[in-house]
Amino acid sequence: MVRNVGVIGLGAMGFGMARSLLRGGFRVHGYDVRKSALEQLAAENGIACDTPAQLAQHCGVLVIVVVNAEQTETVLFGPNGACDSLRPGSVVLACATAAPSFAASLAQRLAERQILMLDAPISGGAARAASGELSMMTSGVPEAYAKVEDVLAAMAKNVYRLGDQYGTGSKVKIINQLLAGVHIAAAAEAMALGMREGVDPAALYEVITHSAGNSWMFENRVPHILEGDYTPLSAVDIFVKDLGLVLDTARSSKFPLPMSAAAHQMFMMASAAGHGKEDDSAVIKVYPGIGLPGAV
Amino acid sequence: MVRNVGVIGLGAMGFGMARSLLRGGFRVHGYDVRKSALEQLAAENGIACDTPAQLAQHCGVLVIVVVNAEQTETVLFGPNGACDSLRPGSVVLACATAAPSFAASLAQRLAERQILMLDAPISGGAARAASGELSMMTSGVPEAYAKVEDVLAAMAKNVYRLGDQYGTGSKVKIINQLLAGVHIAAAAEAMALGMREGVDPAALYEVITHSAGNSWMFENRVPHILEGDYTPLSAVDIFVKDLGLVLDTARSSKFPLPMSAAAHQMFMMASAAGHGKEDDSAVIKVYPGIGLPGAV
Repeated sequence: MVRNVGVIGLGAMGFGMARSLLRGGFRVHGYDVRKSALEQLAAENGIACDTPAQLAQHCGVLVIVVVNAEQTETVLFGPNGACDSLRPGSVVLACATAAPSFAASLAQRLAERQILMLDAPISGGAARAASGELSMMTSGVPEAYAKVEDVLAAMAKNVYRLGDQYGTGSKVKIINQLLAGVHIAAAAEAMALGMREGVDPAALYEVITHSAGNSWMFENRVPHILEGDYTPLSAVDIFVKDLGLVLDTARSSKFPLPMSAAAHQMFMMASAAGHGKEDDSAVIKVYPGIGLPGAV
Repeated sequence: MVRNVGVIGLGAMGFGMARSLLRGGFRVHGYDVRKSALEQLAAENGIACDTPAQLAQHCGVLVIVVVNAEQTETVLFGPNGACDSLRPGSVVLACATAAPSFAASLAQRLAERQILMLDAPISGGAARAASGELSMMTSGVPEAYAKVEDVLAAMAKNVYRLGDQYGTGSKVKIINQLLAGVHIAAAAEAMALGMREGVDPAALYEVITHSAGNSWMFENRVPHILEGDYTPLSAVDIFVKDLGLVLDTARSSKFPLPMSAAAHQMFMMASAAGHGKEDDSAVIKVYPGIGLPGAV
């Protein structure tokens, strides 16, 4: 019997995950506010739905790949939200990067309707979403896992199971974002200092990527700076949001994060200067007194 | 004809480089203030010298692997310094991490004595020093390179040639240290937040090292935290020094480095709290309100 799976949010990540599910033999129902994404899904043999409620009539598993907690809230509990028609015993995979406290309260509210949940933030980028090789940082009860083993296997290469506490998946995800954000800001600062000091940027990139100063983000993002191409793969404003979540979470337990706070300020400077929608590597534009590659 | 090479500074890095040179067929003369290092060198068929001046009588190539600019200054120009006996046409490889301005002035003072120099900071750690697989971030005139090709080949896997300006090698090295220092502080902050939030530290390490938040330093240093072993491979005070050099260099050209400044403060907090001689991962001890693995 072919299983029906719903994907809500067909951005770069969600669409890739829908493709992986289609390839895995699932009947994939999709919803997005953008009509173009729905048309594309239909063209690839998915089923376009007009509302989350319509989609949820058909699906016992719901993968929610929207941007944040607010959007997750809207597609589940808003007008024509999925919870209007989701049946008891269904499973919701909450993939948005959100506060750990949101995952915990969401799980409780769904449980009141006999709906199961996995706290399931994702990592890996659009290409790995489309090839079914995501990392998922999950937590939840065993009954929820039992119902979605095949769905997880179709989408992810690494499914980290972090226990049954809702929020643990989100905690690990925002700690990953803490590091990612600090590393992008540090990469920008390192390249900016090199330019200020007259070091050839391409040579600097070559040396650092073979030295102890390397990071996944340095290696991945600095080429955007070298090419002067700030087309957003992930935008500055994503780190305004995600480092904000990190700091909010730590503030709740009164915990100091000086490195994260410094990085958050850098991304806010970049956003306030008008670079919020550019690639996150555009945080380097905050550094004055240097000539960036590709700048007019 | 067997070539004579002198190595001044037989710490973990210098001793490893001496071993690589011995394995490469050079006659290696060594000097260090620690008698035990000299005895060990003699036991491995190296030649122990009583002073830099005595060592320099025999060697046309001098590899200086001391800790900083001040020690480089002392072994070259101090009492019984190498410059008392170094012949014109000799080549000095200056490997200490020092300010770019120091490399430039040192090259000029050596040139006044017809001594050539390479600005040649190193990276890779003691194990790679001993196996002849270091990275060297070098700059200098072609005549200097021409005289030490074989020496460089015996010690390093990657010899980055960054032009003929003295100071460029040191600039790239301190930018590597900028990233290394920020990444260690960020790794500590990420692990500290995880502990504060009740996330299993070993699981967090496993996830991050397979995600976009990874860095060379996170992967390398966090195991020390997980094991509660702060035996210094590289000490907190090294980053008090190296991030200080980064900030001094940027201050000279009036350039802001907010991420580096935040990391420098973290290492200074750790040093002031009495952890200066511990492994640099001990910067995590600055974070209050958490229970570290291995702590009594």
